[in-house]
Amino acid sequence: MTGMDKLGDEFLDELQTELPNVSILTDPDVTEPYRRDWAKDPGAGSPRAVIRATCTEDVQAVMRWASAHRIPVVPRGAGSGLSGGATAVDGGVVLTTEQMRRIDVDPVTRIAVVQPGLLNAEVKRAVAEQGLWYPPDPSSFEICSIGGNAATNAGGLCCVKYGVTTDYVLGLQVVLADGTAVRLGGPRLKDVAGLSLTKLFVGSEGTLGIITEITLRLIPPQPPASTVVASFSSLDDATASILAVTRVIRPAMLEFMDQTSINAVEDALKMGLDRGAQAMLIAQSDSPGADRTREAEFIAEAFSQHNATEVFTTDDKDEGEAFTAARRFAIPAVERKGPLLLEDVGVPIPALPELLSGIAKIAANRDVTVAVIAHAGDGNTHPLIVHDPADADMTARAHLAFGEIMDLAIALGGTITGEHGVGRLKKAWLPNQVGDDVMLLTRRIKEALDPEGILNPGSVL
Amino acid sequence: MTGMDKLGDEFLDELQTELPNVSILTDPDVTEPYRRDWAKDPGAGSPRAVIRATCTEDVQAVMRWASAHRIPVVPRGAGSGLSGGATAVDGGVVLTTEQMRRIDVDPVTRIAVVQPGLLNAEVKRAVAEQGLWYPPDPSSFEICSIGGNAATNAGGLCCVKYGVTTDYVLGLQVVLADGTAVRLGGPRLKDVAGLSLTKLFVGSEGTLGIITEITLRLIPPQPPASTVVASFSSLDDATASILAVTRVIRPAMLEFMDQTSINAVEDALKMGLDRGAQAMLIAQSDSPGADRTREAEFIAEAFSQHNATEVFTTDDKDEGEAFTAARRFAIPAVERKGPLLLEDVGVPIPALPELLSGIAKIAANRDVTVAVIAHAGDGNTHPLIVHDPADADMTARAHLAFGEIMDLAIALGGTITGEHGVGRLKKAWLPNQVGDDVMLLTRRIKEALDPEGILNPGSVL
Repeated sequence: MTGMDKLGDEFLDELQTELPNVSILTDPDVTEPYRRDWAKDPGAGSPRAVIRATCTEDVQAVMRWASAHRIPVVPRGAGSGLSGGATAVDGGVVLTTEQMRRIDVDPVTRIAVVQPGLLNAEVKRAVAEQGLWYPPDPSSFEICSIGGNAATNAGGLCCVKYGVTTDYVLGLQVVLADGTAVRLGGPRLKDVAGLSLTKLFVGSEGTLGIITEITLRLIPPQPPASTVVASFSSLDDATASILAVTRVIRPAMLEFMDQTSINAVEDALKMGLDRGAQAMLIAQSDSPGADRTREAEFIAEAFSQHNATEVFTTDDKDEGEAFTAARRFAIPAVERKGPLLLEDVGVPIPALPELLSGIAKIAANRDVTVAVIAHAGDGNTHPLIVHDPADADMTARAHLAFGEIMDLAIALGGTITGEHGVGRLKKAWLPNQVGDDVMLLTRRIKEALDPEGILNPGSVL
Repeated sequence: MTGMDKLGDEFLDELQTELPNVSILTDPDVTEPYRRDWAKDPGAGSPRAVIRATCTEDVQAVMRWASAHRIPVVPRGAGSGLSGGATAVDGGVVLTTEQMRRIDVDPVTRIAVVQPGLLNAEVKRAVAEQGLWYPPDPSSFEICSIGGNAATNAGGLCCVKYGVTTDYVLGLQVVLADGTAVRLGGPRLKDVAGLSLTKLFVGSEGTLGIITEITLRLIPPQPPASTVVASFSSLDDATASILAVTRVIRPAMLEFMDQTSINAVEDALKMGLDRGAQAMLIAQSDSPGADRTREAEFIAEAFSQHNATEVFTTDDKDEGEAFTAARRFAIPAVERKGPLLLEDVGVPIPALPELLSGIAKIAANRDVTVAVIAHAGDGNTHPLIVHDPADADMTARAHLAFGEIMDLAIALGGTITGEHGVGRLKKAWLPNQVGDDVMLLTRRIKEALDPEGILNPGSVL
């Protein structure tokens, strides 16, 4: 029993009085875009209000107020999430950090202190101006917020060599359920004082607190990369060549696209991709100096030995970026064929062939189109299930396939989500992956930190 | 009120009946070495028994038993800890994992699944046999256990480029306070399903659970390194040159020794170090190919420009290793001058000069010898306070200096511990660093996971 049933105007007036300079949006036409993230959760509720915080103190006031009245708060970054982590809750409020956009770059300490509303691409640009690099690069980097990246422990394309978001988070400011603001970690490259709370909040999907500031570790700029692109007429050849590469070197990128996604991208971008190929791999080496050529040759040779029908290597930055952009564009391109159920399953890398062939079988069995793209080098795949919501039978089959693909990943010792988060759309499968004892442990921590259950209720747990 | 007061033979008999094949040591002569770790905590208690677990099930049985009788359990790896994290508690038991030594290396998935009792050096050797590398390298790598490394989130020399233990832990098996064994994470390079519990347990110093298995991420072997060694007649020149290096490149190692530690090492190893130098820096580059030479030249040039009195560069592996070994030997070498209070303070790297000059002032003011070695590239220093326990006044001054150095680090925006852990010897300073709200948050998590407070009581909290 929370305050969601009784959230009347008087409560909102109380909050507005407390925060006279903060936009509290209640017009349903205005709040509509805040009901869902990019996963377009069909179960989205209607928020009573959308609150546009401008600073940590605003977030604290909102949480004190929400705590006092037991009002559910759904934190939201840029709304580019792919698992319904920012789905609005009936009668609750959406707290958006999109206006919190400050960044301070310190090139000597090699850190950036950023507010959560800044986009990943804006962070990258700001630190590049100081000659530094923030590696994590979700495909959505131009539209996703750094706060959302931290909340989901987002991955990306270069993570196969450079790691994921948590590897670059040195510190956080977090507002807890009761409105307390805590600083965790800080601008120290090594710090083991107390529990690893910074790491606990990264990837907690807004269920334990609201991130209002992030201290990011930066590194020197990425060296120039060579790009190797190959087409395969057999899925097995493509996956075998992935393993041949990853067991010897660490590529800076190793991406996979299946025939359906190649064709969807080619339909949209008309860049001359091989429509007949069963799979395309895009790899990069950014090893310094001559080692880059050696690695690129090794990758090209591995592809050739596994019967690639075409292997193309380039040192040209723009050519390489064109292929990377094509891969990044795969989700929007496939989405043009119809609404998607987006998967994010990952497996230990030797199980990748079995995962891909199993997905194909599920697609055939359920008679649905499943396009597959993958961060192949780390075993993380994105099967995209296309369906027509007007076709109830197809939609039902798509949802069955959605679950079966997660069941398959779990059976292969894998995960239901490698980088997008559990959100609301995958939470039914979480206990199958982690087991009852880990769910109990998770609930104990959730209850210790958010006893009223007002932080992003219904997400993850 | 715990069971520690009433831990009679009948309780131990009950446990021995439950675990007929497990050594339960009670003879004080035999248990004496298990009372303390390398920090030699003067407040160490006398354990009622030392239990040598052989497998996860043993640890579960011990925790069920301890939980039922509310008996404190101090987990222990190889006993090389430097902060009293494994100090025995009166009436409690010490649970040592030293006999849990299995390792399975999977070169295709590029992981090793290891039990906690294996030494770090043994892990390195086992994975090297498969052509792989486990980077984290505490100076004590030949005598510290991988379980202790995970429990403290240990660092080392190459961490300035390659990260710390948590960056290589993909999964854990952990026995909780009530004896439940949970598996967290696993052999997946990316996995965001649920809270980041793996990361929470890494660095929790045995206060939340007992790690019984670790899944480690491995990478290809380290390329050959060039080593650059320089002596300085001024501390300020040495620290300025550190900043000149770290703001441009990522060295694979950047270590510092002050005059006292140089002389202590030279006394022991007689390798011809410059006894007159105020500071010595040892840096490495392992950048592939010709880039290594370029980086080594850059480092040597930075040292020269900051008035290094001597700069020596070598590509020879053994020569480089001799200097690294000298640096690693600094703690035992300084310990030959007298018992140590070991610090592990770290600061944001621009504050390193101020930290080092402040430590010198504290040493002068308290009239104690403080030798300083540092993982300079990440701002993590080890002031070693030498004292004579027979001299009560000196011992009191040493303890004052011990606290003042931590106070200084906190005042400079730093940490009381970069890689050793809080244990028992630094816990009085933890609230000053993280603040009351973070302590409350920490206690909430501790209470949620260990409500009876039987896991390593008195450590950290």
